[in-house]
Amino acid sequence: MAVYTEVSDEELSAFVARYDLGAVLAAKGIAEGVENSNYLLHTEKGFYILTLYEKRVREGDLPFFIGLMEHLAARGLNCPLPVKDRSGEALGRLAGRPAAIVTFLDGMGVRRPGVGHCGAVGEALARLHLAGEGFEMRRPNALSVEGWRPLYEAARERADTVTPGLAAATAEALGSLEAAWPRGLPQGVIHADLFPDNVFFLGPRLSGLIDFYFACTDALAYDLAVCLNAWCFETDGSFNMTKGRAMITGYEKVRPLQPAEVAALPVLAKGSALRFMLTRLVDWLNVPPGALVKPKDPLEYYRKLRFHDRVTSAADYGRPD
Amino acid sequence: MAVYTEVSDEELSAFVARYDLGAVLAAKGIAEGVENSNYLLHTEKGFYILTLYEKRVREGDLPFFIGLMEHLAARGLNCPLPVKDRSGEALGRLAGRPAAIVTFLDGMGVRRPGVGHCGAVGEALARLHLAGEGFEMRRPNALSVEGWRPLYEAARERADTVTPGLAAATAEALGSLEAAWPRGLPQGVIHADLFPDNVFFLGPRLSGLIDFYFACTDALAYDLAVCLNAWCFETDGSFNMTKGRAMITGYEKVRPLQPAEVAALPVLAKGSALRFMLTRLVDWLNVPPGALVKPKDPLEYYRKLRFHDRVTSAADYGRPD
Repeated sequence: MAVYTEVSDEELSAFVARYDLGAVLAAKGIAEGVENSNYLLHTEKGFYILTLYEKRVREGDLPFFIGLMEHLAARGLNCPLPVKDRSGEALGRLAGRPAAIVTFLDGMGVRRPGVGHCGAVGEALARLHLAGEGFEMRRPNALSVEGWRPLYEAARERADTVTPGLAAATAEALGSLEAAWPRGLPQGVIHADLFPDNVFFLGPRLSGLIDFYFACTDALAYDLAVCLNAWCFETDGSFNMTKGRAMITGYEKVRPLQPAEVAALPVLAKGSALRFMLTRLVDWLNVPPGALVKPKDPLEYYRKLRFHDRVTSAADYGRPD
Repeated sequence: MAVYTEVSDEELSAFVARYDLGAVLAAKGIAEGVENSNYLLHTEKGFYILTLYEKRVREGDLPFFIGLMEHLAARGLNCPLPVKDRSGEALGRLAGRPAAIVTFLDGMGVRRPGVGHCGAVGEALARLHLAGEGFEMRRPNALSVEGWRPLYEAARERADTVTPGLAAATAEALGSLEAAWPRGLPQGVIHADLFPDNVFFLGPRLSGLIDFYFACTDALAYDLAVCLNAWCFETDGSFNMTKGRAMITGYEKVRPLQPAEVAALPVLAKGSALRFMLTRLVDWLNVPPGALVKPKDPLEYYRKLRFHDRVTSAADYGRPD
């Protein structure tokens, strides 16, 4: 939610001159995306988003992200389309950072998602999974089960300063998830971070998906578990089963879940809760001085984790039998 | 340079529905303006800037700022034009803050102003002064000479923690400026904060002026002194007389200075340097925890103050005799 890299007017004009976009008319740093610097760019051809990729994004992953957006847009998914320069390259360098220009997408994130939004997100997620078929590149999910223990180790010593007992409870959840993590579920391209910030609506209609910078190759049902966590809990920490039902039903309208995916949903949801709790915890314990971004509360996801502990089947999320 | 107030999609849609702008298509928080929250707003009618006025802007001053932009735009100055709602009001309330929608201005601030930019700014400043004639509202300059001693008092005790001797040097400058401050110079509407951030260029052409939230009624030549400080020093602290000459010449092409204004320029420039040094010093000593904005260096303006101490006449700024 910040602009980390400042770009001078001369650098920007020189960069944009490599594209068929006409002259730069305006550029405004925007509060969008947590990881990168984003500018709203106005050129003689229209409005675009200019992204400068910051240190947390691995440069070697950028061709995957750029290629994926091209693949998904070509298959009709409404997502930002990378603009190519005159030599056919979508990825360039600006102000010392890798940079890309993508199309501007109308729509706004909803702050308080309703049941209708959850249904639409489920449907869009399934469309994303189908549109991802045939994408040739692969990127392992660095933040799946194998990635959690290193995060836990980084946070363990100080975890109890956030809430007493957090270190022990995390260790227990981690151990049980490592033992029970499902293998062999249908794999494909997943978004892996489809939070309300990353889904645009125009009125009740879902108008687009953005921010593919955690996308990777993993179990499709895990993506649904991420969305259940991100969309279907109320601010008081309770799970809203009506929203869960709408989301799962929306998903299955487009891509019915296989029995193994249905059975795995509780452990996937618990794993997804642990994943966001751990990354938030590490960020929380390591806020740099002068940070521009307020860290997100890890305890929100700790409470979700505890909820999933009591779940026995996908029916508890509202999936119709 | 931040978004202080978050606006929900529902609040925003309800607010914009009061205007003839069609539906909201997108809104992005932008890093523009230090004092207020700004959003780039896309509606069915086009692109606009939505400003939420934060606590440092006095609500009672808003009709002056809004009225001034309307007055200046009506006289052909390229500045944001406040958009009126269907009841004819340009000022509303959103998310608990006073709020206004203004037109979107193309152009970009220049990071390294050249001689040509300085000439264009001088000319635009004089045009602003002429366009301000006939504006009926008045707003005293709270940050002119009478406002400096309270700032000094607020910073005095800890000033030497910034650099040794700063408190004594500031006291001396303040005393001499209070004694020598010119009275009776031609008055009018001044921008009072026309820094490079607030002047847009398209290529070499000046395309507009923004951020009128320090505008007030004061000596016109003081505004020129502010600009000499803001535009004509190099990053190594030296004054570039070629830029000064271009700026003053540009100004006088449109509005020739009176002899009393020419004579007063050194003391006005020293006073303007003290004004920005003092507000930066107070901010520097009072950075709130978790601040989103990095405070500006007061010592930059301390060095400018020392430069003006050695100036004997406007010729030292490059004004042709």
